[in-house]
Amino acid sequence: MQPLLIYNTLTHSKELFKPLTADHVGMYVCGPTVYGDAHLGHARPAITFDVVFRYLQHIGYKVRYVRNITDVGHLENDADEGEDKIAKKARLEQLEPMEVAQYFTNRYHAAMDKLGVLRPSIEPHASGHIIEQIELVKKIMEAGLAYESNGSVYFDVRKYQEQTHQYGRLSGRVIEEMLATTRDLDGQDEKRFSGDFALWKKASPEHIMRWPSPWSDGFPGWHTECTAMGTKYLGEQFDIHGGGMDLVFPHHESEMAQQTAVTGHGPCHYWMHNNMITINGKKMGKSLGNFITLDEFFNGSHKHPETGEEMLAQPYSPMTIRFFILQAHYRSTVDFSNEALQAAEKGYARLLEAYKSLSRISASDKSDKSDVSGLRQRCYDAMNDDLNTPIVIGHLFDAAKVINGAADGHLKLSQADIDELKDVFDTFLFDILGMRDESSSDNSGLVDGLMHMILDMRSVAKANKDWGTSDRIRDGLKELGVTVKDGKDGATWSL
Amino acid sequence: MQPLLIYNTLTHSKELFKPLTADHVGMYVCGPTVYGDAHLGHARPAITFDVVFRYLQHIGYKVRYVRNITDVGHLENDADEGEDKIAKKARLEQLEPMEVAQYFTNRYHAAMDKLGVLRPSIEPHASGHIIEQIELVKKIMEAGLAYESNGSVYFDVRKYQEQTHQYGRLSGRVIEEMLATTRDLDGQDEKRFSGDFALWKKASPEHIMRWPSPWSDGFPGWHTECTAMGTKYLGEQFDIHGGGMDLVFPHHESEMAQQTAVTGHGPCHYWMHNNMITINGKKMGKSLGNFITLDEFFNGSHKHPETGEEMLAQPYSPMTIRFFILQAHYRSTVDFSNEALQAAEKGYARLLEAYKSLSRISASDKSDKSDVSGLRQRCYDAMNDDLNTPIVIGHLFDAAKVINGAADGHLKLSQADIDELKDVFDTFLFDILGMRDESSSDNSGLVDGLMHMILDMRSVAKANKDWGTSDRIRDGLKELGVTVKDGKDGATWSL
Repeated sequence: MQPLLIYNTLTHSKELFKPLTADHVGMYVCGPTVYGDAHLGHARPAITFDVVFRYLQHIGYKVRYVRNITDVGHLENDADEGEDKIAKKARLEQLEPMEVAQYFTNRYHAAMDKLGVLRPSIEPHASGHIIEQIELVKKIMEAGLAYESNGSVYFDVRKYQEQTHQYGRLSGRVIEEMLATTRDLDGQDEKRFSGDFALWKKASPEHIMRWPSPWSDGFPGWHTECTAMGTKYLGEQFDIHGGGMDLVFPHHESEMAQQTAVTGHGPCHYWMHNNMITINGKKMGKSLGNFITLDEFFNGSHKHPETGEEMLAQPYSPMTIRFFILQAHYRSTVDFSNEALQAAEKGYARLLEAYKSLSRISASDKSDKSDVSGLRQRCYDAMNDDLNTPIVIGHLFDAAKVINGAADGHLKLSQADIDELKDVFDTFLFDILGMRDESSSDNSGLVDGLMHMILDMRSVAKANKDWGTSDRIRDGLKELGVTVKDGKDGATWSL
Repeated sequence: MQPLLIYNTLTHSKELFKPLTADHVGMYVCGPTVYGDAHLGHARPAITFDVVFRYLQHIGYKVRYVRNITDVGHLENDADEGEDKIAKKARLEQLEPMEVAQYFTNRYHAAMDKLGVLRPSIEPHASGHIIEQIELVKKIMEAGLAYESNGSVYFDVRKYQEQTHQYGRLSGRVIEEMLATTRDLDGQDEKRFSGDFALWKKASPEHIMRWPSPWSDGFPGWHTECTAMGTKYLGEQFDIHGGGMDLVFPHHESEMAQQTAVTGHGPCHYWMHNNMITINGKKMGKSLGNFITLDEFFNGSHKHPETGEEMLAQPYSPMTIRFFILQAHYRSTVDFSNEALQAAEKGYARLLEAYKSLSRISASDKSDKSDVSGLRQRCYDAMNDDLNTPIVIGHLFDAAKVINGAADGHLKLSQADIDELKDVFDTFLFDILGMRDESSSDNSGLVDGLMHMILDMRSVAKANKDWGTSDRIRDGLKELGVTVKDGKDGATWSL
């Protein structure tokens, strides 16, 4: 196995990855809330942990990867309509939250498929695990660390802190400060302390999603689903829990507290968090008008809801988005701009072109340079250093320079080195980083064949000094967006 | 609205479709059990009710279509291992049923997407609705029509029959005969009567999937999920309940009984059932060696597990399978054979070719024949007659003859008739029957453009009597699998 270092949010340090069960890894990552379209902020954790999933498997682990679907939403019936009126409406005329959730789940999957994000081993729905969440709440109550109030149940943060001194350990929040700055509640509120969080909420009349429980007809609190489903599918303690940095508090801190209340320890060994994406230096938000969905990126259409300003200079393909995200380390912030995405697009095209030209290089007996042999290990070293994908990509750019030199005839490469370069690109660029060649599709063989015929006719026309034909071919291809490049080994083309 | 007749299994007659709620349709169809790959027997109900879904929407209804995923499986821990040994195994080393279910759910979706089957409005999982199933069982017990026995709960068929005289109404089974031929059980069995069916089963130690309930840690009986989920998302009574004919007894008969026990009426107004698929005249089955998965059809590989015999003469594309299924009425049996699928492939290619040649026909002032004007209504009439898709396809074949006649110059068609033909094909072949042109993909524009260039060069070469070039083009295209056909309006090509 590769010696993989992972930065653990809990210990603020890089630690050597060691699974709890030999050869197996259990990984849980917080998935989307499916009441809206996926945006760049969804793409980043999905791609980050997709690379973790791919790399752990590549180095030999059997990975069970659980990523949940949060479909316990907070949709309410139209406030203008009284309860009576709603009750009289036919079922089919009413808003059905699961129809909304299904719609956005399907769209999320379609967007993730385009981004090359592999499906997790299990994708459990929060609404499908209400029993498990109720059982969890019961256990926390049995441990004396939760209380019922008016049909709802709250986690008793102060009591938990007295017993364990663990609250705030993950996020670095100091509960004593929270306590000092918070007055005692005057009894109007259901909570004993403002920092307490809901484990079960009694449903108000207009709340649509509700289930029976020992306390009320209601729905689980936000933090219970991940604890219940992580435990169910990965056990009381598993290896990696991941998510975006914005989830550290209160979500993951609460998960820590819930699991510790029941078992005496947190849910996982390694907490991994990806950093955030900003847009032109600003936080992304619906109210800021810079909220761009993935589909808008893919088709290049976005209008500021108020100013009508176009934020996207062009469409960006899914692989451009993926490459852009992987060009930053997952713990760094990433700032979106048209310039940055255009640079990513060009950079990836350069890598692909180098990869493709490998098959056209005539091998020499011996390579001029010998650093091809160290490339693979340098890529592993970068991945092993807390999944440093930008460094891997940097090494591939260096390799591309060597390949281009050989393609131009300035450099010599042996067949063994050509094969090694191809294999390193296959392994790191495609298998581990999960990139793919978007120009290839079901028709790609046919396109290649037709282009081959056309370029042949072009070279015959040139040889015959039939400039009329060769000009017609040049103009026709240009119109179709095909660029032809003449090289020492014949003409090549790209879209 | 179109006057749609639907054959109702319950009344053994075609009835005029009238929704329970104006303009809305609630439809529930039994979906797959996700513990194996989808085969032809899964494709038929999915395609049948996809056409129902498409047609109801086309004629103006707002449809909520629910199709369940049965993931409450019967996987057991390895029987060779004692309970102690299993308990000592790490969670990650154990078989996790939901990982199996997720894998086959993803594969089912991929196969259905290929077949052009639209995603239903809601796709609820049985495992995600245990609470709703427990609540249903409680209600049936409150009605006095179920009894607990050793931690399991059974539906009391004899008592239900005494009270309602409804058991067997859907399937035509006569319970009195069942009673007469069945001796009283000797008390060894948990059931009071062999015809009783389980509503809740206590889990044996090796049974993996289990949930707490008032009666035992266990799992719901097979029939409860559809009753519970249909009620939850469509109401206590909805419009259409569909499924394969093999589900009429005991599954749908039991659903009828469960809902009638609680509400006094069955779950739906119209019961629709598609007939079965046989393979070379025999039932399909794993033990018969004629069990062919959809993926095997798509890639043409299948070997009889014992004899090694190849059952498939070639790969069959998803649209060939879909066309083959729609060429039979859904209530007829369909027999698979290589000959029948090859005929479907050719037939669909003929329709597509006629559709494509519409854009090349030079319009005349007036059409020779006037029966184009009646085509659309004839197609509607066929759909309205219990969704008679083979008749619709027959009308489209007649239209293709007219189109081909016009393309050959034997017949005249006005622009209005050309437009009408195109619109009828768009509406019925593509929108309602859900067929698509598989030769088109993301590169199709490029392929069209390149082919246009090549055919231009070919005609220039021919005009110049440059037979060397035109022969090279002919051979090159042949090698790529492209067929060129010369017609009065120039050359056309197909794959």
